[in-house]
Amino acid sequence: MSSLKLEDLELLSEHRCFDGVQRYYQHNAETVGLPMRFSVFIPQQAQEGRVPVLFYLAGLTCTEETFMIKGGAQRIAAQHGLMLVAPDTSPRGAGIAGEDDSWDFGTGAGFYLDATQEPWSRHYRMESYVADELFDIVTTILPGLAACAGIFGHSMGGHGALVLAQKHSDKFQSVSAFAPIAAPTRCPWGEKAFTGYLGPDRQAWSDHDASLLMEKSQNPFPRGILIDQGMADGFLAEQLHPEAFEAACAHAGQPLILRRHDGYDHGYYFISTFMQDHIDFHAERLRGG
Amino acid sequence: MSSLKLEDLELLSEHRCFDGVQRYYQHNAETVGLPMRFSVFIPQQAQEGRVPVLFYLAGLTCTEETFMIKGGAQRIAAQHGLMLVAPDTSPRGAGIAGEDDSWDFGTGAGFYLDATQEPWSRHYRMESYVADELFDIVTTILPGLAACAGIFGHSMGGHGALVLAQKHSDKFQSVSAFAPIAAPTRCPWGEKAFTGYLGPDRQAWSDHDASLLMEKSQNPFPRGILIDQGMADGFLAEQLHPEAFEAACAHAGQPLILRRHDGYDHGYYFISTFMQDHIDFHAERLRGG
Repeated sequence: MSSLKLEDLELLSEHRCFDGVQRYYQHNAETVGLPMRFSVFIPQQAQEGRVPVLFYLAGLTCTEETFMIKGGAQRIAAQHGLMLVAPDTSPRGAGIAGEDDSWDFGTGAGFYLDATQEPWSRHYRMESYVADELFDIVTTILPGLAACAGIFGHSMGGHGALVLAQKHSDKFQSVSAFAPIAAPTRCPWGEKAFTGYLGPDRQAWSDHDASLLMEKSQNPFPRGILIDQGMADGFLAEQLHPEAFEAACAHAGQPLILRRHDGYDHGYYFISTFMQDHIDFHAERLRGG
Repeated sequence: MSSLKLEDLELLSEHRCFDGVQRYYQHNAETVGLPMRFSVFIPQQAQEGRVPVLFYLAGLTCTEETFMIKGGAQRIAAQHGLMLVAPDTSPRGAGIAGEDDSWDFGTGAGFYLDATQEPWSRHYRMESYVADELFDIVTTILPGLAACAGIFGHSMGGHGALVLAQKHSDKFQSVSAFAPIAAPTRCPWGEKAFTGYLGPDRQAWSDHDASLLMEKSQNPFPRGILIDQGMADGFLAEQLHPEAFEAACAHAGQPLILRRHDGYDHGYYFISTFMQDHIDFHAERLRGG
């Protein structure tokens, strides 16, 4: 995959932003077998040498634009000299019957895993796309060349961040999440997605559940994990289960900062409120890495 | 109009945000004769007493959501204890033939004026809506009751801010703009809108052109006006004409800070980059007012 060159990326648009540049790219993704889009904020500091990169994985129904438009993150990334990268949330246009029928499965709901079940397994390979192909693009061919990487995300993307960071801890040195689906094998969103993408055998699901992965770990992120959760989040009780991840971290000896915020809901007004804390958290861990 | 009560406002949604609250309201607007929507960010400080309010007028095709989602303003307003208010950009559903045909006239393009021409004059009364009705709502019935007011905006909304501030200087104590349509009688967007809303007689247009109004003024904002303009803005040469407003300010003895920024375009990546400067500017002028 590192055979890709900068010329293989189609620059869809660029906008100057906080002395850096906000770009949208499209490319023919080998892992997914379809064109994929991603967004990147490159800070001014990248002109002077390698900078750390922070991957953001968005939630159900979002695209590569959502975080860059709503998150308020570029200002903070510019302060720290961090690159930001956000992929789309699924392949688009795979041509699978029913892929556009649900907002929580198929298009816009790739769950950052590699599907094993037909007809999804050919194109729905978001784990390989993010952790291998996009990671390689960002660390080898993009202007600014990332020096080291962290990962964070929201809801489905919080699940993605907590899982990919654990499974690819050689690549991601810091991890945090906003209102993650923290135990997807135990909630309706996860059960629907995993049944569809991974099949009915629950044994095959355990490698994609952040809490189950953590139970088997031993202090994988010694400098801690940060999670923010709004207590007025309408999805909290049924879908998110941060307490399961909290228990797993306690079992594994993993330092966890889990903050519960009264009155905050599941949306980007919540996320943007705590964006500074998250990017500061990653910058401290990626600095000099 | 001040007969309106808080109960006459339908609360469409609310979200906790930066220790304050982001709300969306709808109400039957007397000035416009149709339901209108607006958004408001109420900072935590409003629980302690009156706070200043800053009105934001958005550009063509935008809604009452655009600024609150893309501007990154709530963080800064929370620091200063400022209320933020953003109306929609036109009436919706007036039922006028052709009102949805253009993106730069009719729906989403009210130009913050009171139309005098049929069939627009019945509903397209955005100057009265913003400067009278919404101003009254914000300063008399909303929680937090605004103590004093400033106004700013972008593109068509920059035009609106510069014009409404001059025509209603008893209400607005501070004014700024991002890439405003600064001389609408001399650009295609303005000529199209003013012909449609105000008729072909150009004499009737002069009260709605920020530069023509300024030429007749004498130092109306002694503490200055702030304008930011991106030099990679694709609309700059044909539509915006900040140099006309600059000349008018020089003629009127009006202090103007007009900053030209290399590489920045017309969008919210530009706007959000300089949002802190604008809100700081207003806060300094509204503090203690």
